[in-house]
Amino acid sequence: MSEIFENSGFSTLKDLGEFGLINHLTEHIKLYHNSTVKGVGDDAAVLDFPNKKVLVSTDMLIEGVHFDLMYMPLKHLGYKSIIVNLSDICAMNAKPTQVTISLGISSRFTLEAIEELYSGILLACNKYKVDLVGGDTCSSQKGLIISVTVLGEANQEDIVYRNTAKAGDLLCVSGDLGGAYMGLQMLEREKAVFLENSNIQPDLEGKDYIVERQLKPEARVDVPETLKALGIKPTAMIDISDGLASETLHIANSSKLGCKLYEEKIPIDPMTYDTARDFGLDPTVCALSGGEDYELLFTVSQSDYDKIKFQPDISIIGHMTDESEGCYLISKSGNAHTLTAQGWDAFKK
Amino acid sequence: MSEIFENSGFSTLKDLGEFGLINHLTEHIKLYHNSTVKGVGDDAAVLDFPNKKVLVSTDMLIEGVHFDLMYMPLKHLGYKSIIVNLSDICAMNAKPTQVTISLGISSRFTLEAIEELYSGILLACNKYKVDLVGGDTCSSQKGLIISVTVLGEANQEDIVYRNTAKAGDLLCVSGDLGGAYMGLQMLEREKAVFLENSNIQPDLEGKDYIVERQLKPEARVDVPETLKALGIKPTAMIDISDGLASETLHIANSSKLGCKLYEEKIPIDPMTYDTARDFGLDPTVCALSGGEDYELLFTVSQSDYDKIKFQPDISIIGHMTDESEGCYLISKSGNAHTLTAQGWDAFKK
Repeated sequence: MSEIFENSGFSTLKDLGEFGLINHLTEHIKLYHNSTVKGVGDDAAVLDFPNKKVLVSTDMLIEGVHFDLMYMPLKHLGYKSIIVNLSDICAMNAKPTQVTISLGISSRFTLEAIEELYSGILLACNKYKVDLVGGDTCSSQKGLIISVTVLGEANQEDIVYRNTAKAGDLLCVSGDLGGAYMGLQMLEREKAVFLENSNIQPDLEGKDYIVERQLKPEARVDVPETLKALGIKPTAMIDISDGLASETLHIANSSKLGCKLYEEKIPIDPMTYDTARDFGLDPTVCALSGGEDYELLFTVSQSDYDKIKFQPDISIIGHMTDESEGCYLISKSGNAHTLTAQGWDAFKK
Repeated sequence: MSEIFENSGFSTLKDLGEFGLINHLTEHIKLYHNSTVKGVGDDAAVLDFPNKKVLVSTDMLIEGVHFDLMYMPLKHLGYKSIIVNLSDICAMNAKPTQVTISLGISSRFTLEAIEELYSGILLACNKYKVDLVGGDTCSSQKGLIISVTVLGEANQEDIVYRNTAKAGDLLCVSGDLGGAYMGLQMLEREKAVFLENSNIQPDLEGKDYIVERQLKPEARVDVPETLKALGIKPTAMIDISDGLASETLHIANSSKLGCKLYEEKIPIDPMTYDTARDFGLDPTVCALSGGEDYELLFTVSQSDYDKIKFQPDISIIGHMTDESEGCYLISKSGNAHTLTAQGWDAFKK
């Protein structure tokens, strides 16, 4: 039925066949969790979570929509495709444990290209100690398609939903925001330059941090651990894939609350700030609407203020209010602006 | 980032937006299982399997590779995309309980089209009582992409792998084979006729059974239940997605065994048989290499022969041998042919 490499001219792939390719790619998988009873190799993986709740989330990445292989190396793409899924489990205050991966591959990809992609996938699995337990590999008519499902585990009492914030809770965020978006702007600009004149090499010098935020994001598995060590259970949590504004509104709307977000408190890295200025962009807007930072946004009770106020890498950026008070961004000059989600919900324009 | 319907001219979809679309599609989901603690609506679903092992499997379906919308109605496609995944859980002698669905949708699809697809997805979920607990919806550059992950549950002692058959075990199969393949041949022929002259309506009269085998297959969730009721635990099991030959070889090779498969014992429906003859095809080859029947192929101990021999809808088609004896098809005339997998492993041709 599928015919990935018939037309590719790469005899190695034709010789391998689908099952040979899967065997070749999966032979170096390491398993870390006792919950993995049986990984790849049968009709389904077998897992065991006798004393934990099981978390499940899934995300699909499509070439030309979610990534551009002109500046996204395949190894980075493989890595990122795992990270964006792990982040969803972290956002439940839980620990990712297993992933499955389905790949749709067009005939222009070589075995070496797929190995590159897979090396990034396995790098992320090994770094974050998650077990790759299954998947599917098939041909696509056009471009590369990656679908990942992640499983995680948590004690019932530790799981945090997005709809359980309370009025008065403090709104907190890990890390800094807007960097992934500015990294994307840099890469898009260099791509445009390159397309104009292929003799000009990309100039990303000194922009390592923001380029890496875009190409090689990390999942904040450390944040649930840190909060637990501090004796804090967040009242609500979500990860920032679509921009701070959109995610804040998700917490507020699903918790039936309002919020006040303070512009001056939003953590923005100096390189993000300066690059935004160079591009004529407002750094705050990049943080609010940029997306793909994969930081965690969460609310904590005011009574936890003393525990969290000096925590490095966590910023208190606002607080939740009654629903009737609405959702506002308070600018540096003290003006209140209605908070709107411009994130990636680009269906609606 | 994604821009599914900006270009579609269908204002309803633009108005809905991504989150509106997801809410719209998921509002009629019914949940059947206590193991589903929290379904759609957060970063991840929360599940609970305190006393069971958890099965996980995933499959991706890509337009133009796995299906052709010229003759595959969207509702059927949605239904089938669930079934092929449920079948993988049945193949572990387990019970499917939850699914997640990711859709990549190109701008040519209307809201009504997506609703059709979803109605088939929900029909399968309701019929098989599996809970739709998560997913992702994004735009694709070309065509429709469906990625499903299924979870299931089983007692440890009931799970059956494919690599645990023993020499002397009987090889059994549920239902009949080759029908889905002949249904596909019918549909392909009528498509070719229609492309030649669009005034000629498809003539599928009297071919309901094989067309339905292709367009609306079912998952054999009843087979594990029947076997349990008979007091039989299969020694190995796999589902037939790639054709009888390929799946038999999977059991034999992974169990390090040989096998003898008897042509005269292979269950083929009369309509499949007659249609194959009309097309100048060998019905046995259709059963061996056709694929997509989603029947279950399994081995049982010879001591279970009396329990299974009169079981309707289960055929004993051969037996496993020592590896050194090789894998053979014994033809109706008594000749032994080496069994080769021509299934869907079309990477290798």
